[in-house]
Amino acid sequence: MNNLIVVMGVSGCGKSTIGNSLSQKMKIPFIDADDFHPKANIEKMSRGEALTDKDRLPWLQALNAELKSRGKSDGAILACSALKEEYRRILSDNITTIQWVFLEGSFDLIKKRIETRSNHFMDATLLQSQFDTLEIPNYGIKVNCEKSPEDITNEIIREMQKSAFGIFGIGVMGKSLALNMLDKGVSVSVYNRNEGVEKEMVENFLKETDNNNAAGFTELKDFVQSLQTPRKILLMVKAGNVVDVVIDNIVPFLEEGDILIDGGNSHYKDTERRVNSLKNKQIHFVGLGVSGGEEGALKGPSLMPGGSEEGYNCVASYLNLIAAKDENGNPCCNYIGPNGAGHFVKMVHNGIEYADMQLLAELYALLSVTKSYEEISGIFSKWNEGELSSYLLEITAKILQEKEGNSNLLDLILDKAGNKGTGSWSSVSALELGVPTTMKTAAVYARYTSSFKETRVKLSKDVRSSEINDEMNIDLLERAYDFARTINLQQGLQLIQSASEEYNWNLNLSEICRIWSSGCIIKSEKIKAFSEILKAGNNLFESKEILESLHENETAMPYVIDYALKTRISIPCFYEAYNYWVAMTTEQSSANMIQAQRDFFGAHKFQRVDAEQDKMFHHNWS
Amino acid sequence: MNNLIVVMGVSGCGKSTIGNSLSQKMKIPFIDADDFHPKANIEKMSRGEALTDKDRLPWLQALNAELKSRGKSDGAILACSALKEEYRRILSDNITTIQWVFLEGSFDLIKKRIETRSNHFMDATLLQSQFDTLEIPNYGIKVNCEKSPEDITNEIIREMQKSAFGIFGIGVMGKSLALNMLDKGVSVSVYNRNEGVEKEMVENFLKETDNNNAAGFTELKDFVQSLQTPRKILLMVKAGNVVDVVIDNIVPFLEEGDILIDGGNSHYKDTERRVNSLKNKQIHFVGLGVSGGEEGALKGPSLMPGGSEEGYNCVASYLNLIAAKDENGNPCCNYIGPNGAGHFVKMVHNGIEYADMQLLAELYALLSVTKSYEEISGIFSKWNEGELSSYLLEITAKILQEKEGNSNLLDLILDKAGNKGTGSWSSVSALELGVPTTMKTAAVYARYTSSFKETRVKLSKDVRSSEINDEMNIDLLERAYDFARTINLQQGLQLIQSASEEYNWNLNLSEICRIWSSGCIIKSEKIKAFSEILKAGNNLFESKEILESLHENETAMPYVIDYALKTRISIPCFYEAYNYWVAMTTEQSSANMIQAQRDFFGAHKFQRVDAEQDKMFHHNWS
Repeated sequence: MNNLIVVMGVSGCGKSTIGNSLSQKMKIPFIDADDFHPKANIEKMSRGEALTDKDRLPWLQALNAELKSRGKSDGAILACSALKEEYRRILSDNITTIQWVFLEGSFDLIKKRIETRSNHFMDATLLQSQFDTLEIPNYGIKVNCEKSPEDITNEIIREMQKSAFGIFGIGVMGKSLALNMLDKGVSVSVYNRNEGVEKEMVENFLKETDNNNAAGFTELKDFVQSLQTPRKILLMVKAGNVVDVVIDNIVPFLEEGDILIDGGNSHYKDTERRVNSLKNKQIHFVGLGVSGGEEGALKGPSLMPGGSEEGYNCVASYLNLIAAKDENGNPCCNYIGPNGAGHFVKMVHNGIEYADMQLLAELYALLSVTKSYEEISGIFSKWNEGELSSYLLEITAKILQEKEGNSNLLDLILDKAGNKGTGSWSSVSALELGVPTTMKTAAVYARYTSSFKETRVKLSKDVRSSEINDEMNIDLLERAYDFARTINLQQGLQLIQSASEEYNWNLNLSEICRIWSSGCIIKSEKIKAFSEILKAGNNLFESKEILESLHENETAMPYVIDYALKTRISIPCFYEAYNYWVAMTTEQSSANMIQAQRDFFGAHKFQRVDAEQDKMFHHNWS
Repeated sequence: MNNLIVVMGVSGCGKSTIGNSLSQKMKIPFIDADDFHPKANIEKMSRGEALTDKDRLPWLQALNAELKSRGKSDGAILACSALKEEYRRILSDNITTIQWVFLEGSFDLIKKRIETRSNHFMDATLLQSQFDTLEIPNYGIKVNCEKSPEDITNEIIREMQKSAFGIFGIGVMGKSLALNMLDKGVSVSVYNRNEGVEKEMVENFLKETDNNNAAGFTELKDFVQSLQTPRKILLMVKAGNVVDVVIDNIVPFLEEGDILIDGGNSHYKDTERRVNSLKNKQIHFVGLGVSGGEEGALKGPSLMPGGSEEGYNCVASYLNLIAAKDENGNPCCNYIGPNGAGHFVKMVHNGIEYADMQLLAELYALLSVTKSYEEISGIFSKWNEGELSSYLLEITAKILQEKEGNSNLLDLILDKAGNKGTGSWSSVSALELGVPTTMKTAAVYARYTSSFKETRVKLSKDVRSSEINDEMNIDLLERAYDFARTINLQQGLQLIQSASEEYNWNLNLSEICRIWSSGCIIKSEKIKAFSEILKAGNNLFESKEILESLHENETAMPYVIDYALKTRISIPCFYEAYNYWVAMTTEQSSANMIQAQRDFFGAHKFQRVDAEQDKMFHHNWS
């Protein structure tokens, strides 16, 4: 439980009474915000003048400093009207967790209360302006101030014993996110079913964590009832139909205003459907893309929340707490956009990841012609010191070092690549939206091809072996890799931009790159740089810097592709990077032939170079 | 209306009576099948012995000859029991259209009729064997024989005035198919709405065709009522939601046993859904793939029917009539498989078409470096004389010849390629089914890339121009084209095979290639050859002939790709053909690196080369 509590509400709601009562019961010191006004404010108020927000700033800052200081010792219960969200933001600035308690009541109720009280300096006629100013928080504990002080106090304490956050499903990712959140001082309830291989998962989790802020449940109803309202529940279950089943099971226990967050790799169209169907039940549904693997989840993942914006606002402070931090210390988390936008962006993230991984596999294949794993690892490590630095490059250098006895572990791993949906979904979306994400698809197909191991072994027997083993020019290879990485990101970002236009999501590519700059699998120096470049607009092909680098590095591509031709090595991702760029920089393509053929056999008509583009022509072919 | 009518049914149903009555009313001569028995049969029957099917053959053949001969003059009304489908097949052999009339009645009813008749030689006790032999036709006019001869005759004449086949929607394809069917002597009702740009379409169709067998409607109810039962209605409307709307509108007018055929490019999953939902209403739904463009539809398309097999059997004779004929004269039409199988195969056909077209566009681009359109056309025409012959190659040679004034028409066509769904659907299915159809997807992406014309023009300004214009080695290019065409078909057929396994469709690839050997856009000598090769099994990679040709022609690929690198020409389809083959013939791929990376960041586990393949391992990476 937190030891910093702010009791808030309009004048006359009983903040001081309740604050004092809580203080006695909880043995936490009480402080009154009114006692922290600077002299100038007190004089102004005694003259009957209203305070401005500018007047309030030093006062709120003083309160913030006081809370920070007390948070480190015995804590504090602060009574403070804190009517605006902005006031509360200043009050809680740089403080991890504050327990907000809002004493609510109607205008008529509070008016009556004030009129029956004699020792208060405020005129009831000013009450209306307080209600006008009040921005009701969408978080914290809310109690009706009509009840007796004792009842109110007991209710608040009961609520505070509840957890702030719930996590449904504590597999690898759910468990890591729960530990991350507990580590940030948030009280967390976890739920998992208690059968089959999942037997005793909850029990073991509680044993391992040994944290007073953690509560565990194997009964859904108990789990839901253990949460403060509005309930914030993160679902960490397998994407697909399971999510719908879980939603159907949990919704009967929820109340209006509760928030469900789907942290799995759900398809963005499913998320859109769920957002809308739960909206009808007044449940906020947030589709949350999570990247960073187990370690990211534990230490700080990259988070891509989308869907209900109201729901997001209720959970933003928690997500920000657990997210990775960018180079400026800001959380790698921000509201992406409505409906399935968060999961869409996560899906494209995975598509980019597929191509990044495939490029590294192709580099490994190319370099293996003449170099040892040790040497290749050295090359990658060196590249990783500069602009090409990335998490995937770093781990690839490590993988090449990994031994098992006298063998390289890599040589003991079977060359059949698995995949889990999001990679191919990314290509499917590209096909649906008309975006040529050639590299992502090449990476998916390379995995598929690898899976035909038996056929490969059989067909390889009749291949004429090539005896070429020229040394690769490492500088050219580095430039080719730089080129391909840029094209991969450009294609991914263009896919996001097309979806944004198609679905009116109004996405911010620079911000998305910032979110990807830390915590996630594709984090890299290049993405950091792109986040800056994209501040000028959502199109990388309008950046002089990007274009110059592509034109410059393009010259390395034919060399690398030719090397692969000579050594008979499959490098579809490198080739597709190059081919895409060649196609995108070709003024006159051969697509006029396609149009002619379509008109010839199917009367599909064509545009002409010498007519307006909205006119279509059919030719009577001889 | 047809002038060859066969009145059929078991002994005692009244065939002769009704045949004579029809003859008088319709002024068409009557003949009785019994009069055509050879002497041997008459003797056998008079001995009280039963005829065998062998005995019946010369008799049925004589009847067939008689009908053929009479069909050319005044026609004939034949009374013949024709109990088995095989008898009817012999009777109608090489006769385009016969109007079958089946006089139906229960065993008890017919038994009573026979027992009250004195002048008939057949014993009622033999009736049971007639009923046992009877195979009720799923076509033709069916009338209950209990009614009075006059009522029966009038009902038959009313029914015969109805059309045998209905076509809903007479756009380019619907109109061409209607004309094709009318040309084969089938009576056809067409329907089209009469509003907007479709105003007077039906009226104009009837004027243009000027055919007594054609009837036209703009009211749905009248259209449906103009058809013989079971009604056979071909829907030729835009794929997508429109099909569902049309089905919803038309079903209330249909009866159990009627057949709806969707001849549009519907998605195979939609077709599956429709087959099943209409099955509940006892309506047969056939998803019919149609290829051949306007000309094919008019003169003989390639037809790929799937869905309700019972429905297919009712319309097979009509589809066979209008389909293209293969080199042995058999119709390029056969039942493909259940649910969406027909539309799936059509979708893959279109994917193959996309890649075939793109290969030709790439050849055109490569050859344009040093050759005139006239020269390129000459090269293509020459190739088209041999094993590489195909419809698309033929029209491409023609397109290159096409002039407008002094210009090549091709130069006046804008190089932005359009597309209509099925091409990208084919790639989406490949992604979903785990099949690397790299060439089809490259072709789709090439069209997408071409659509960014403005970006291409802008980005092309800074490209360093290459001044290379080496002559292309045409022999190597021809071999490369042969290689790529084979890979394209292999990938397409593998996609079909994977779907067949996934959905338990039990498809026959050899038969599918035979259906594609004429009438459709991808018809070619190669497909004919593949139809033969695939008789040995559904896997082209098990054909020694195919493998030898691929290993042999592979050597031309690096040359062509290198030429494209030097001249900076985009040839993704050629490259993806080659890369796929290289990957499929590589014993040790670089996918072990992908597996290592996945295990490193996501604990996804991997298989080992030195352990059983059903075991997965996780490594604790340092």
